[in-house]
Amino acid sequence: MRNNNIRDMWAKGEAVVSAWLSIGNSYTAEIAGWAGYDCVLVDLQHGMTDIQTMIGMLQAISSTPATPIVRVPSCDAPVIMKALDAGAFGIVCPMINSVKEAEAFVAATRYPPLGERSFGPARGLLYGGADYFQHADRSIVRLGMIETLDGLNALDEICAVDGLDGIFVGPNDLGLALGKGTLGDPTDETVREAILRCLASAKAHGKHAGIFCPSSSVAARRSSEGFDFVVPNSEVNLLKSALIAEASGARSIRN
Amino acid sequence: MRNNNIRDMWAKGEAVVSAWLSIGNSYTAEIAGWAGYDCVLVDLQHGMTDIQTMIGMLQAISSTPATPIVRVPSCDAPVIMKALDAGAFGIVCPMINSVKEAEAFVAATRYPPLGERSFGPARGLLYGGADYFQHADRSIVRLGMIETLDGLNALDEICAVDGLDGIFVGPNDLGLALGKGTLGDPTDETVREAILRCLASAKAHGKHAGIFCPSSSVAARRSSEGFDFVVPNSEVNLLKSALIAEASGARSIRN
Amino acid sequence: MRNNNIRDMWAKGEAVVSAWLSIGNSYTAEIAGWAGYDCVLVDLQHGMTDIQTMIGMLQAISSTPATPIVRVPSCDAPVIMKALDAGAFGIVCPMINSVKEAEAFVAATRYPPLGERSFGPARGLLYGGADYFQHADRSIVRLGMIETLDGLNALDEICAVDGLDGIFVGPNDLGLALGKGTLGDPTDETVREAILRCLASAKAHGKHAGIFCPSSSVAARRSSEGFDFVVPNSEVNLLKSALIAEASGARSIRN
Amino acid sequence: MRNNNIRDMWAKGEAVVSAWLSIGNSYTAEIAGWAGYDCVLVDLQHGMTDIQTMIGMLQAISSTPATPIVRVPSCDAPVIMKALDAGAFGIVCPMINSVKEAEAFVAATRYPPLGERSFGPARGLLYGGADYFQHADRSIVRLGMIETLDGLNALDEICAVDGLDGIFVGPNDLGLALGKGTLGDPTDETVREAILRCLASAKAHGKHAGIFCPSSSVAARRSSEGFDFVVPNSEVNLLKSALIAEASGARSIRN
Amino acid sequence: MRNNNIRDMWAKGEAVVSAWLSIGNSYTAEIAGWAGYDCVLVDLQHGMTDIQTMIGMLQAISSTPATPIVRVPSCDAPVIMKALDAGAFGIVCPMINSVKEAEAFVAATRYPPLGERSFGPARGLLYGGADYFQHADRSIVRLGMIETLDGLNALDEICAVDGLDGIFVGPNDLGLALGKGTLGDPTDETVREAILRCLASAKAHGKHAGIFCPSSSVAARRSSEGFDFVVPNSEVNLLKSALIAEASGARSIRN
Amino acid sequence: MRNNNIRDMWAKGEAVVSAWLSIGNSYTAEIAGWAGYDCVLVDLQHGMTDIQTMIGMLQAISSTPATPIVRVPSCDAPVIMKALDAGAFGIVCPMINSVKEAEAFVAATRYPPLGERSFGPARGLLYGGADYFQHADRSIVRLGMIETLDGLNALDEICAVDGLDGIFVGPNDLGLALGKGTLGDPTDETVREAILRCLASAKAHGKHAGIFCPSSSVAARRSSEGFDFVVPNSEVNLLKSALIAEASGARSIRN
Repeated sequence: MRNNNIRDMWAKGEAVVSAWLSIGNSYTAEIAGWAGYDCVLVDLQHGMTDIQTMIGMLQAISSTPATPIVRVPSCDAPVIMKALDAGAFGIVCPMINSVKEAEAFVAATRYPPLGERSFGPARGLLYGGADYFQHADRSIVRLGMIETLDGLNALDEICAVDGLDGIFVGPNDLGLALGKGTLGDPTDETVREAILRCLASAKAHGKHAGIFCPSSSVAARRSSEGFDFVVPNSEVNLLKSALIAEASGARSIRN
Repeated sequence: MRNNNIRDMWAKGEAVVSAWLSIGNSYTAEIAGWAGYDCVLVDLQHGMTDIQTMIGMLQAISSTPATPIVRVPSCDAPVIMKALDAGAFGIVCPMINSVKEAEAFVAATRYPPLGERSFGPARGLLYGGADYFQHADRSIVRLGMIETLDGLNALDEICAVDGLDGIFVGPNDLGLALGKGTLGDPTDETVREAILRCLASAKAHGKHAGIFCPSSSVAARRSSEGFDFVVPNSEVNLLKSALIAEASGARSIRN
Repeated sequence: MRNNNIRDMWAKGEAVVSAWLSIGNSYTAEIAGWAGYDCVLVDLQHGMTDIQTMIGMLQAISSTPATPIVRVPSCDAPVIMKALDAGAFGIVCPMINSVKEAEAFVAATRYPPLGERSFGPARGLLYGGADYFQHADRSIVRLGMIETLDGLNALDEICAVDGLDGIFVGPNDLGLALGKGTLGDPTDETVREAILRCLASAKAHGKHAGIFCPSSSVAARRSSEGFDFVVPNSEVNLLKSALIAEASGARSIRN
Repeated sequence: MRNNNIRDMWAKGEAVVSAWLSIGNSYTAEIAGWAGYDCVLVDLQHGMTDIQTMIGMLQAISSTPATPIVRVPSCDAPVIMKALDAGAFGIVCPMINSVKEAEAFVAATRYPPLGERSFGPARGLLYGGADYFQHADRSIVRLGMIETLDGLNALDEICAVDGLDGIFVGPNDLGLALGKGTLGDPTDETVREAILRCLASAKAHGKHAGIFCPSSSVAARRSSEGFDFVVPNSEVNLLKSALIAEASGARSIRN
Repeated sequence: MRNNNIRDMWAKGEAVVSAWLSIGNSYTAEIAGWAGYDCVLVDLQHGMTDIQTMIGMLQAISSTPATPIVRVPSCDAPVIMKALDAGAFGIVCPMINSVKEAEAFVAATRYPPLGERSFGPARGLLYGGADYFQHADRSIVRLGMIETLDGLNALDEICAVDGLDGIFVGPNDLGLALGKGTLGDPTDETVREAILRCLASAKAHGKHAGIFCPSSSVAARRSSEGFDFVVPNSEVNLLKSALIAEASGARSIRN
Repeated sequence: MRNNNIRDMWAKGEAVVSAWLSIGNSYTAEIAGWAGYDCVLVDLQHGMTDIQTMIGMLQAISSTPATPIVRVPSCDAPVIMKALDAGAFGIVCPMINSVKEAEAFVAATRYPPLGERSFGPARGLLYGGADYFQHADRSIVRLGMIETLDGLNALDEICAVDGLDGIFVGPNDLGLALGKGTLGDPTDETVREAILRCLASAKAHGKHAGIFCPSSSVAARRSSEGFDFVVPNSEVNLLKSALIAEASGARSIRN
């Protein structure tokens, strides 16, 4: 049975640090897997990545110490199942707006009678091992994103959904939803309060709380606040910043 | 007629700052193209990239202000021609060990009677424009790498080869060749001297001199030394460093 | 007009033998097409395959004597239409739980006024021929999967849906749905009875009945029971078994 | 801020001429971008193209003077958002059958509070510029297709939907829906009348009207009728015709 | 045993008409295969195509009546063998400058003892049939390109090489080599004479003569001159012309 | 430091059992890696695979217990270096005909001063570890193929080449070279004697001897003869046989 670093970290009471991949490429995925993260997330929603590319990325991550997970584009059962069949050990599902959606999300990740996942674990059998079917239900991590007004309004009910491991906050979308713009580390009081309410609700229901952060320092702060799944920016933002800085630096002392 | 930023910068007496792409991906190539570099190099030699992927990367770079160029895997005429047909406006050719190789390299980039390039400019016509054939010879930049003992020994003769725009120093391979290990910014005196000899020889023959650097600060220093084509590290090294730093930083103040 | 082997076999009163492709690759698809199957199915649901890869696989199968068909990931009209536009001459649709879904499935495969398929047959015109539009409706085969409790409960009504050619039994999912685990050739009496009920219902409504089997011997037995569309395992299971056996065999008499 | 040729042409009172890409290939996309069209549409619905291929095509189009747009396979919000994140500056959405669908389409293209688009503009930031978020709402063009009886019946209400820039007529599907077959330039009076009704309704509501045409001469005629977004056939039809003509011509005077 | 249309046409005393593919895409390859050509050539030299893409294109062509052939980038034995293993039934080899090169080209296409081809016919076995090894030597067609001064000078000796089926003239490169520019249908007397000398030499040695033409009318004329393998332009040139014409035509009668 | 199973097995005095991949696909590569082989070889020579596909396959194999190795298409230094940079821990080089070629092969795999490999280990650093440069020379395994008359004639000298780990026999090509046809397990005495001569020469020079076999039983026999690197057929042959057998079996008892 293949372990899931996310559950291992949580069992030790530690926060998970996840990489976030927007570039659809196996080599960068493998690099991220060796960079010290507990898990590496392939972003199918906003990443420049589709399903075939994701499969190669999951393979690449599987060759590293990190656990491969996927953010799906929406709460669409066939895509969730495909990501799991391809060996994802965790799913982050965007725009969970209601208990019904949260339940549908969880059901798509569980075989009957617990859920409605269709059988055919393909690459899951390679990564998860021959006993995949026995342990898949407890190996797979499910995080639902709270990032809309509807989601906020249904927060407590969503956090109570059985089988959901936790929630994940998208500060940009949450800020937009609250009419306060897109800031990775929101300064507006309404947004800040909403984020902390997400954290509190998750904790109150014995669930985990994750959040996307614009930097490692914000991630560390979120971790100290109680978030136990933090993402210190995406690899594409890191690359963009580094490339711009080096181009500029190379010209800086020319004369 | 499409301009070549490299020639424009040189005409202004300024050093070219080039990005260096080891990741075989069009999205990262496009990001590099917008990051402030004069040109962006697709590395077919050590990059995790092949020809089909290179074509997409050249297209992506063509949508940005940067000029697309290619490092080919070796002085192999069909590959050099393919890169040019695909729209590369410059070629960096590794392991030039002799005048004969330098001349073969140049010949592969020029149509008869100046050289032996076969006609069929494909995407070159899109990027270069309908007048591609008229201006290709003066648009394309040719840099031969000096990175072996043979290359060093033939340095002056290589620098004298007609049609070669300049040389490009690979400090790692040069260090290895001199038995002094692989350091991006060599500290060994033998290697440092050899690098400066490359620069001096290029200048003496009215040619340009480029060099791969491990950082923008070294690139800036090389530029001040007289190198007029500098590469402040590859995008993959920048990404790797940033990912490691962020993973570590996210855990740093957890308790 | 391109013939459909499935309809030809049925017209002769014979069972169709279909290959089943979980590997997203055109070369293996072509191999399957030459291996003696009446049709070759590209599995978009659990296969490690997406739409772009499927197109190449359908092309490869089209170069062989076998008829190309597709299992779609779900009853999602745009994907069904895409598979048809790409030249699939049959669709297997998973998880048909109700008459409404069966009807929606059929409608997605038929042009108005019979259904709701959008016009734009792309590669279908190449494989199907210039008269594709005239014969598509009777060329295309539609099989709905019965693999859930809801599906079983609505079995007779589903079998009665006009335009549906038949049903296809997924023993693994059906076993799971009945709480009896995943066995390719179920031994549990409840599951066995459910499978035979599917067969009987299809026959009673003049429809065809297909089933996925774990081996050719089970497929042959199913064929003798009356199933007229049998799949003797997937290519990936066959490959896996063969590779394991050869690795083991190569070591067996070493000392 | 990156301009949108479509809006520029409309501002000048001129009809937009769009290329239409059914071939999933970046090189042909780039060729189309240089061929004199105001915009180039990547057809995800009937084209032999999926999302990963689309991204490369949008990059290729971005290297040309043409504005890149996408026809999505259906009114599915995650796919619409993905196309926008990948840098599409316009969306053509098929089979708009009701006000509700038209509104859902528009909502998927607008950030809150105007709509429900999720934040993460990825390649949109490269193509659209750093100010993408500020201008995306007015840069992006939204055309809903009228091609079903339901769509025709709801025509006026659909044309009144706020945020919808206009409608786009698919003559083939409309002909099919009206029981009059698939003609690119319909001769049947019912279909012709329906098409002109679409045009009139769009104009009456201050919206734009587009139409797919089987040739440039029909496109020019449609433009003179008042359509201000015309497509003179797809690239695949043009290629097919040219290839057939040349094969035939090469044999024509052999003896 | 799979027939080769090229040999069949030649056996009937007719000229072969070949399509020429510069776009690296399986869909366009399949379209070409159905367009009426005897064979379809995948251009690895100047086409925007590499080996992996070529394999899919050969598969697509194999699903049509046309025979698949390949122009390799150069006389490089491993690439020639790869194209043959992938199922090419003919090779056009560029820049044959000497008898030695012509012999090396032929040797790379023949198994020992006739040549030096390595055994491993992969997809060749699928396309060519189980008896591939028995008939490959007489199925495969070998055409060497005469397009340089060296090639012209060695013309008669090259035409005499055993196993070479004929020569293929590249008018653009030949014109360049003769210092007369690149014209698809050369008007310069020196180039015209050189082309006819190629034809005469091939005939004198009982070999076939092919030529690339800028249009079907030139191809028909070349055929009447005695060339028995003619190419009426590439698909990319046809597409480009058609796209430009339609864009222009759509605007032509706007006011 | 990453271990190399090949060297580990040899150190224990055991024969290495290698899988052989002709299908260009990461999923099948990963399956092979879990099937019990010590190493998995990606065949760039006769496999339907190119360099970009190889990279994904090497990543997939790296996620399994097997060591990834590559057969290159020929003794071409840039391709050998690319395979190593991509993380191959062994190279099988075909058609070694002379000491000179054997030395060139070895030199391409070793950094100066031992050889001529260019520095830039890319993915090698991920798979091999941060200490890759230190241990690459002793980690990488080099096997030269003896499969031509020239190779046989130079057998002893080739086996004596320093840095070459051993030779690998291709029975098909060897049989062809000796004029005895292509048999995976040759019965002709001349070929059998030549194979055993290869084994004896390797042993006499303290080198390893490998051989491609048509089945696991032959592989086991070769192992007992003294070959310490055996390949029990390719995955494509296994798949083909299994598919044919199952198609046939499914029809066997139909009536």
